[in-house]
This record gives sequence, structure tokens and C-alpha cells, in this order.
Amino acid sequence: MDKQSVFLLISSSSSDADIHYLCGTKPPEAAVFLKKGKKLILLVSEMEHNRLKRKVYPTVEVICPAELGIKPGQRFFYWISRLLEENKCSSVFIPPYFPIGIVDQLRKEGFFVEIIKKSLCPQREIKNSDEIKAIQQSQRAAVIAMKAAFEQIASSKISKTGLLKLGNQALTSEMVRATINHTLLDYDCTAEETIVAGGLLSADPHERGSGLLSAGQPIVIDIFPKSGKTGYFGDITRTVCRGPAPAALKKQYLAVKAAQAAQLKMLKTGIRAASVHKTGADIMAARGFKTEKINGIAQGFIHGTGHGVGLEIHETPRVSPANKKALRTGHIVTIEPGLYYSEIGGVRIEDTVVITETGYKMLAPCPKQLEI
Amino acid sequence: MDKQSVFLLISSSSSDADIHYLCGTKPPEAAVFLKKGKKLILLVSEMEHNRLKRKVYPTVEVICPAELGIKPGQRFFYWISRLLEENKCSSVFIPPYFPIGIVDQLRKEGFFVEIIKKSLCPQREIKNSDEIKAIQQSQRAAVIAMKAAFEQIASSKISKTGLLKLGNQALTSEMVRATINHTLLDYDCTAEETIVAGGLLSADPHERGSGLLSAGQPIVIDIFPKSGKTGYFGDITRTVCRGPAPAALKKQYLAVKAAQAAQLKMLKTGIRAASVHKTGADIMAARGFKTEKINGIAQGFIHGTGHGVGLEIHETPRVSPANKKALRTGHIVTIEPGLYYSEIGGVRIEDTVVITETGYKMLAPCPKQLEI
Repeated sequence: MDKQSVFLLISSSSSDADIHYLCGTKPPEAAVFLKKGKKLILLVSEMEHNRLKRKVYPTVEVICPAELGIKPGQRFFYWISRLLEENKCSSVFIPPYFPIGIVDQLRKEGFFVEIIKKSLCPQREIKNSDEIKAIQQSQRAAVIAMKAAFEQIASSKISKTGLLKLGNQALTSEMVRATINHTLLDYDCTAEETIVAGGLLSADPHERGSGLLSAGQPIVIDIFPKSGKTGYFGDITRTVCRGPAPAALKKQYLAVKAAQAAQLKMLKTGIRAASVHKTGADIMAARGFKTEKINGIAQGFIHGTGHGVGLEIHETPRVSPANKKALRTGHIVTIEPGLYYSEIGGVRIEDTVVITETGYKMLAPCPKQLEI
Repeated sequence: MDKQSVFLLISSSSSDADIHYLCGTKPPEAAVFLKKGKKLILLVSEMEHNRLKRKVYPTVEVICPAELGIKPGQRFFYWISRLLEENKCSSVFIPPYFPIGIVDQLRKEGFFVEIIKKSLCPQREIKNSDEIKAIQQSQRAAVIAMKAAFEQIASSKISKTGLLKLGNQALTSEMVRATINHTLLDYDCTAEETIVAGGLLSADPHERGSGLLSAGQPIVIDIFPKSGKTGYFGDITRTVCRGPAPAALKKQYLAVKAAQAAQLKMLKTGIRAASVHKTGADIMAARGFKTEKINGIAQGFIHGTGHGVGLEIHETPRVSPANKKALRTGHIVTIEPGLYYSEIGGVRIEDTVVITETGYKMLAPCPKQLEI
């Protein structure tokens, strides 16, 4: 038996995506996954046994502790050691995210445990047609929610002081976020951290946003829903401005839009991720948008261009300066250049695309327009 | 320097709750937390630096890689080793869930790394008044959503074939789940896995539920929302039946209700968690409800009585046979006995309560009634 072929996973937030991918369903809270050659075993509690049997791929054998002679109340570690003994696995490979506490106990009991340096499921990077469909469904929900946000903002009136009003009520980030999240729910999607950041709050890429929205200021809207049915994510960002945008904001928006267009245009299998990032960075720099610390705050193009999207919202491959590898057919990545300045605010434009032999396919198109 | 007092955490789904608790806000994707004596340091990227500074407790120092001489693109592991060097920490304690990959690298570089056996934040178990308020808010949202589900189900008509109808439309689990999740959103709560399991599907405690709902059958509704604002969860379950319930289901419901009432009644600081579980189990067994494998499927009272609720939906203390420790003032736990039989369906009744000196406080009351 080649020891290379024995892999062990236990459910935890980090490994859930791998187990989901390998077994075809989200694992319950306590689960042990073992791959020995072609044999795939998922060990779950009695209570989860029957349901999991119905939900996993037919190639996965679902077993419960009693089948290994484990009594109720025996520690979770014992589940793992019994499963390994039963399958005559004295040495196993584990991923780098495996918890040290379990590894130490396994080693104490004489198991040989080695960390695999590479991803356990490198094939997770390359999406098959079912996965592309699932991500596309989440992305379509995100686009419909984005359009609902556009409509709500566009339908607002501008008060004398520049505040956005819906009837007598001031429009807030919270109200737009609610519109988005309610729309997503209608497509069985949830979004924990939808961003609707207006004005100078938008200068911070991960600020969720709160409070009153005003005309003539950027509103960054970033929607990344997870499908309740499939577990796959979508991801989209638009930046809008109610009423006429100031010249500086317009210029900033056009720079980001040009960067994204150039980055999308160069996508195809074989293109290096780092070079996609560099193209966007160079275009914005050439238009005078510097990336540097100003008053102690990082400003400009202060994040990578994108990331893989799948069972996790951020997964490999990254589209960043550090990733010297090529993008490949079946990669699904975001292309989301942005510029952030504390005196103007932020602009980010993001689409999620699948890389093809000759270019890319936009998973769900959505208008790009600053002023609404 | 007492080495006991140096703790290291890196953000990952498992440690996020601990970092959130210690720093007062959810950490970003890449973060390193170091506690050296009374010094608390959170290392995050340039991009997150400014926002995190605004959001953490004033006792936490937020720094970014540049302040440690780390250049863009340098590996995350280097963040950790630089932070330890800078703070002269040659030996550190880490929790058992810390990733083995990082530990191995730290040890290779000569750091002394030891696993703490106890919880890193044992005080997380005991909720302070702000936490009780936060959990109560999520619990109140859950109760309002539960009542909306009751109303929707109660307003349905029963067709000749026993299906529930809203006008011409058949009522489904998905529709009730949508009602619940939309209601939660109005209180800035999200719920990824709301359960609305009707008929025999309810015999599986973690089955999410799908499809048509019928009269005269159990519908298990389990709602566990997370607040977008505070990050704290609530948790409630009710079992209802549209129209008259069959005698066997009624008997099962009354057994669970009696078990929960007795369990709630015995709660107070000092009571052993295991004895709370045993009381419920004994009451249901005395009424003839056996817990055993029938046709290869675990049936009866097949799960523990409850769990702690806080920044994680399931946290310590567990209210289970394995937990021989006493519940204490400030613990917030669920009390959720249940009975599950594949030929009748499931019944579960769950409330979330805070333990007090002399008893318990229900965080948000909600009616318990089988037939609606």
C-alpha cells in the first residue's frame, strides 16, 4: 500500500470545503474523512448517519461510531484512531490546516503523520460543468440583487442638503443592504457580509457600511451570496453615485473601469495571474493614481486583483502579484481592481468569470455605470 | 517573563470566535493575534489596518506588516515569525485547533510551541451583560420569525388530500423557510441552515426539510440566527402540526414537553449538565419512548440536551451525558430534548436560557403548542 494514498481529514471550518468537495455534501459538525486508495470513508455520529448516507456521492461509504465498536460518549479522538486502525493505516497524510492537537495525539499513539504541502484537492481549482452552473446560479442571484439596489438608489430623491430620500425617509446603507439580502433569499442564497459603503467609508475595501447615503458620493456595493442548495458562492461589486459625480470621482471610476476591461481582455488559459494584476496596476498608475501610504493610511490599489470562487468565497487561484502561476481553463476567478483614497472614497468593479481556452466567460453580466 | 502568558492565534474559522472575543470584533481573513502578559497585539494587512483600529477594544494594539519590516508579498508565516521575534517570544502557547502546518514551521525555526489543554478564553463560557443582551436580541429575532412561521402555517387551508394550501399554491418547507429568513433579515440577522422539516423528514434532527407540507404531521422548525451587528447567535426550535395531530404524535410531543419542563425547572448554578440530560431522558423513557437502533437507524432521544450559545452556534458548555461539570451563573445554553421515530417523525422543543444563582432566565419566550 503506497502511503501517499492515505489521506485523513476531520471536519472543521477549514476542511469543510474539502470534505464537501470530496463527498458531495457539507459534513456535519463532527466528521472524519479517510481516503485510502480509491476507498472513501466518512465517519459521522449515529444521528447524522442516515441523512448523510442519502446525500453523499455513491462512491463514499458513510459509517458511524458503533460500527467501529465506539461507545456513546467516547472522545472524538478515539473515532479517528479507531478508523485508522480498522483500515490498517499506520501512516497518513494530512493538510497543513489540520489541528495540531489531534496530530500530537496521533503521533503519541504511534501513527506516522505527514503534512502534504500541496492542496489535498488540487482539482477543486478547476471547476467542472456542474460547479460552473452552481456558481453561475449564485452569481445570477447576486446580479439580480445588485439591480434591485440600483433601482432603490436611483428611485431616491436628493434633498436640499444632498441626502438621499425615499419619500420622507432618509435612505441608509442598512436599507440598501436589506433590499439586496431579501432579494438573495428569494434565490435561496444568504450573504453574511454584504457591503454597502457610502461616501468616505467606501475608502476602506472591507468596511460593511452604515448610516445615511448622500448624492455625489461613491457607494461601493459588494455582494457575495452562498447558495443554500449547492454551497457555492458568487461575487460581484459595483460602485455607483446618485446624481452627478464630482470630476475626481469620475476620473477614478474610469481608471478602475479601464483597468478591469484590460484585465478581462487578456484572460485566457496560460496567462500568468501576476501579469493580469500588473496590467491593471500599471493602467491606473499611468493615469496618475498612486498606491502609497498617505497620512499613515494605505491608499490607491491596495489589494490583489482577484481570487478563486467556489465552495469558499476566497480560494485558489489568487490573481495577485505573488501568484506567478498561469490561469487555466476552468478556473473561476474574480477580476476586481479598485482605487481607494481617504479624501474621495473608494471605487471597485468586480466580475466573476470562468477562464476558457481562448478568453473568458462572464458568469452573469451586469451594467457598469457610475452615475444613477 | 512567565511563558504561560504568551499566547498566539491566527485567524481561521475555528479561531475567529476567540479573536473576536478577545479583540471585540471579527478578525479579517489574515490576522495574527498575540497576547504577551497584558499586551494584546493584532497583526493585519495594510488594507485592514485602519478599519480594525477603529473596531477593536482600546486595549488592543493593531499593527500592520510594514511596521515589522515585512514587504508586500512575503508569506503569511513570516508575519507570524516576525511578530514573535519583535516581541521576544521564543516560546508560545497555542490552542489545540491551531494548524499543524504553521506549528511545524515554527518548531523548525526554533520556536518552542506548546498546546494549551484548556480553552484559551475559558471566560467565553460565562456571558457578561453585554453578551446576554446581544444573544437576547438574536433570540428575540428568532422568536419573531418563529411566530411568522406559525402564522403562515396556521393560515393555510387543508386540501382534500391533506396538503397545506395558501390560496391555490401548495405550502412548502421552502416557503416557510423563506418567511423565517426574511423576517430575520429585518432584524439584521442571517440564518444559513434554518430547518423546516415536515412529516417523516423531521425524524432526522439535522434534515433541513424540503417539499410539500401536510396536515396531521409534525413540522420541526429550528431557527438559529446570527446577528450581523454583534456576531452573536440565538437558537430556538418548535414542533407544530397543522390540524388535529394523530394520538401517537401527541403523546410524543407531550413527553418531550414534559422532559423540557422538568429540565428547565432543575436549572440553576451548580446543577450538573449530565444530570439535566438524564432527567429528560428518564422522563421520556418512563413514558415508553425508547432510544435504540430500529431497522439500522438510531431512534428516540438521539442527541444531547443542549449546548452553549455565543459567538459560535455550538460552544461549551454542552448539556450532555459526557459533561459531568456543573452549569454556572452566566452560562447561556439551549435546552432541547427531542424524540425521533422513522414511522412518526420528530419532535424537538428548544429554548435558549441563561443560568442564574437560583434558576434560569428565558431569553425570549415563545408559545409551545403542537396543533395550529
